[in-house]
Amino acid sequence: MKTNSGNFFEDFRLGQTLHHATPRTLTEGDRALYTALYGSRFALQSGDAFAKHLGFHKSPVDDLLVFHTVFGKSVPDISLNAVANLGYAEGRFMKPVYPGETLTAISEVIGLKENSNGETGTVYVRSTGRNQDGETVLEYCRWVMVRKRDPQAPTETLVPQLADCVEASDLHVAPHTDYATLFNTELSGSAHRWDDYEPGETIDHVDGMTVEEAEHMLATRLYQNTAKVHFNQFTESKGRFGKRLIYGGHVISIARALSFNGLANAVSIAAINAGRHVAPLFSGDTVFAWSEVLDKAEIPHRRDVGALRLRLVATKNLPCDAFPDKDDKGVYPENVILDFDYWALLPRKL
Amino acid sequence: MKTNSGNFFEDFRLGQTLHHATPRTLTEGDRALYTALYGSRFALQSGDAFAKHLGFHKSPVDDLLVFHTVFGKSVPDISLNAVANLGYAEGRFMKPVYPGETLTAISEVIGLKENSNGETGTVYVRSTGRNQDGETVLEYCRWVMVRKRDPQAPTETLVPQLADCVEASDLHVAPHTDYATLFNTELSGSAHRWDDYEPGETIDHVDGMTVEEAEHMLATRLYQNTAKVHFNQFTESKGRFGKRLIYGGHVISIARALSFNGLANAVSIAAINAGRHVAPLFSGDTVFAWSEVLDKAEIPHRRDVGALRLRLVATKNLPCDAFPDKDDKGVYPENVILDFDYWALLPRKL
Amino acid sequence: MKTNSGNFFEDFRLGQTLHHATPRTLTEGDRALYTALYGSRFALQSGDAFAKHLGFHKSPVDDLLVFHTVFGKSVPDISLNAVANLGYAEGRFMKPVYPGETLTAISEVIGLKENSNGETGTVYVRSTGRNQDGETVLEYCRWVMVRKRDPQAPTETLVPQLADCVEASDLHVAPHTDYATLFNTELSGSAHRWDDYEPGETIDHVDGMTVEEAEHMLATRLYQNTAKVHFNQFTESKGRFGKRLIYGGHVISIARALSFNGLANAVSIAAINAGRHVAPLFSGDTVFAWSEVLDKAEIPHRRDVGALRLRLVATKNLPCDAFPDKDDKGVYPENVILDFDYWALLPRKL
Repeated sequence: MKTNSGNFFEDFRLGQTLHHATPRTLTEGDRALYTALYGSRFALQSGDAFAKHLGFHKSPVDDLLVFHTVFGKSVPDISLNAVANLGYAEGRFMKPVYPGETLTAISEVIGLKENSNGETGTVYVRSTGRNQDGETVLEYCRWVMVRKRDPQAPTETLVPQLADCVEASDLHVAPHTDYATLFNTELSGSAHRWDDYEPGETIDHVDGMTVEEAEHMLATRLYQNTAKVHFNQFTESKGRFGKRLIYGGHVISIARALSFNGLANAVSIAAINAGRHVAPLFSGDTVFAWSEVLDKAEIPHRRDVGALRLRLVATKNLPCDAFPDKDDKGVYPENVILDFDYWALLPRKL
Repeated sequence: MKTNSGNFFEDFRLGQTLHHATPRTLTEGDRALYTALYGSRFALQSGDAFAKHLGFHKSPVDDLLVFHTVFGKSVPDISLNAVANLGYAEGRFMKPVYPGETLTAISEVIGLKENSNGETGTVYVRSTGRNQDGETVLEYCRWVMVRKRDPQAPTETLVPQLADCVEASDLHVAPHTDYATLFNTELSGSAHRWDDYEPGETIDHVDGMTVEEAEHMLATRLYQNTAKVHFNQFTESKGRFGKRLIYGGHVISIARALSFNGLANAVSIAAINAGRHVAPLFSGDTVFAWSEVLDKAEIPHRRDVGALRLRLVATKNLPCDAFPDKDDKGVYPENVILDFDYWALLPRKL
Repeated sequence: MKTNSGNFFEDFRLGQTLHHATPRTLTEGDRALYTALYGSRFALQSGDAFAKHLGFHKSPVDDLLVFHTVFGKSVPDISLNAVANLGYAEGRFMKPVYPGETLTAISEVIGLKENSNGETGTVYVRSTGRNQDGETVLEYCRWVMVRKRDPQAPTETLVPQLADCVEASDLHVAPHTDYATLFNTELSGSAHRWDDYEPGETIDHVDGMTVEEAEHMLATRLYQNTAKVHFNQFTESKGRFGKRLIYGGHVISIARALSFNGLANAVSIAAINAGRHVAPLFSGDTVFAWSEVLDKAEIPHRRDVGALRLRLVATKNLPCDAFPDKDDKGVYPENVILDFDYWALLPRKL
């Protein structure tokens, strides 16, 4: 067979390294498309002059564009036969990616666990994105439920221990700058610095964004993500939902762009601690979001910049002024679609 | 409150300067998106080789992309609580913007007038867009009707005197070139130069362009314009129209792109004299346009290039072969959506 | 008349050369949009580092983006009054086009034949795309059925002899490289090289892609293609199909992107031998594709790279696992929309 039918659960081996196809140069074109798709307004990624003033080479591409690109590369090898994208952990952004840089990706299989029905199993991988110089720009773990081809096929079992949260001391921060002094909060859109946020604080991001089929397909193709459920209405019309599913990463990017309203100075995502796609999103739905400050941390040896651990919750067709959340049993309200836990970097006060 | 709820009418002060957020580097990516959104074919903005031959550094980005970018920056501070975008005046494009340049914007409050109902008032601002070197690339006045938070709040009153039309002698024209000699009308798509147009002449631009939700939202996000009515179907479905409103600037860009068919050599917009969004446009509507030559003017000390004062009228779902126009009382036919008055630059005959 | 009403059949003259308007610089922005529109994953066009390793300056833009750009330029002069796009022949890609290069196009009228009804006729042209240095990057013949303005107008007649297939010895291949050694099949997504394909082999490309109005209009405007039937729902709602027709080239690009799954190493299109748009595609339809290897050819003096002559068949709303094809009488099943014959270049085995 010359076509790729993807790996099934029994095809994965513990310790296996998968080299993903199609190197991808991210350019000014991707940056413009990312802006058009999400309306992101974080100053560091929007203005070269702003980024240079902060000591960056120029505006880096959005952290989530890097994430989606690496994720997209892994789909043909990891999740073409996936039933569900279950979670993320230990994600770290190691280096800014600038327009013109070429990304490649590999994934290592770090865990396997067959489900009791014998029809599916969970595959845990650690994916690594590298630039053209072989430097790691991003690594993260994800686990997905993947179909078995043959229910009788033998499989290995190992459930990896993954950290609940990346340590603040492990966050990568651009070294040669002084955020406190050089960060222009008039240009960035908010006077609120790291010092102004406290654990337990919740922020309703107010605005809503309706999603169209053309938009999520443009985005998902931009990431060269080939998961079938996003593109093929002919098949999906006969499927579980009767319509195309929107790539979960599209939801993360929409919610992150909405979070500008309240978190304008959270200009970089330094780590992804956890993430769950609680429910599917479809074309025509309107996404809202709210955030909770879970924690705040100093960065070792830095007085200019701090980290906030944020929980970004997105809903569909439900404004977030009441902060819809899971109950004591961990059950989410019907309209919650995303629960995403990450570290963001913000300038500190002088 | 860490989220921006926008300024209400009583928050504005005469003479106040608002520094708008999020510097924006316009790139080749924005240029490509602009082409994909409107199909614009003006040669100066399309071909680097053509632009260089005319003495430009390379192809500048479309004048209206500059306008929309500056406009978008002003929305969170000026018109987040606007009821209507009422008009434009004294718009001047001062310098070409090339891919790679970073724009910032400020607005000065030049007028205020509360409406008699006490619920709204008109805010007049002069917005200025600057490049990374602090040079002004665009300035224009606009006035919007903005809600009051508190009907009892005291307000200032001043209605500014704004020119009906920018003087031809105030138009900025690229200095070091000879349009008459160097402008290749075979490549530009029309043999008709400045000399061939006469005041009173009307041109039906023939073609129609249907607009989809995904397109106007991509455009409006590209401009980082956050006005809520363009994006949130959940809220708008309960609103006045039951659907998302299309950003008025999107209509201007569609009509301008359509006007290539008849005005192919009107390659630059030098000034915006006036503009009125007569009626709203919605997804599924088809835009048509016609132009009237209001005036023609020589540029001081220049024999190679001249200015046409043009009125660009756009309709929805109504071809323009009958030149639909306002009546003696200034009332427009139902399907007219835009009346836009601008100065364009065209090469003169040798 | 200052607007372009296009040429009618009787306006064309044998040997006439038409210089098409609007030079177009293709950039990183166009490359990103092409990826977003089709999800193309061919490594040579996706990764600069991959392309440089192969001896290219950087990643060239997709061959079909070059084709669509040249095609688009020819529309206002050749096919504005076309009833149908009938065929292609003798297409050759002569030089890679890199982001930053400016294309212009001319067409020569090489054949004319009036239809017996006197209302239409077939116009044969050879179109040539050139870069900013005047070098030919692409040439191809196409023929279209064009309306007559006046059924009584006299016309010329000549049906040109066009080759069924471009000779393999006429294919342009990048000279200074060694595909066999330098082509990284781990990064390209497939281990299958030229040697692994045999004439008669058929490949179902499996995946389906549903098309939305916004997508095909964005694409067709990106190519500055002004054919009215793609954009104007107001007029088309009263027309033959009641809806907008999708540009045939959009179908070619979708099918080509789908063909990555099975032909990942067919990284360049070297020639277009023939092409027929068998049936129209509309928004909401899902495109599938399959390929047949028609022939394979060595490239003179090259042991590192070979050519496959491929037939790319696309369908709408019909998976291609049964390889739907024309019958003995040349009649296609209802759902077949494209039959496209081209030469692709692939690395050979060491």
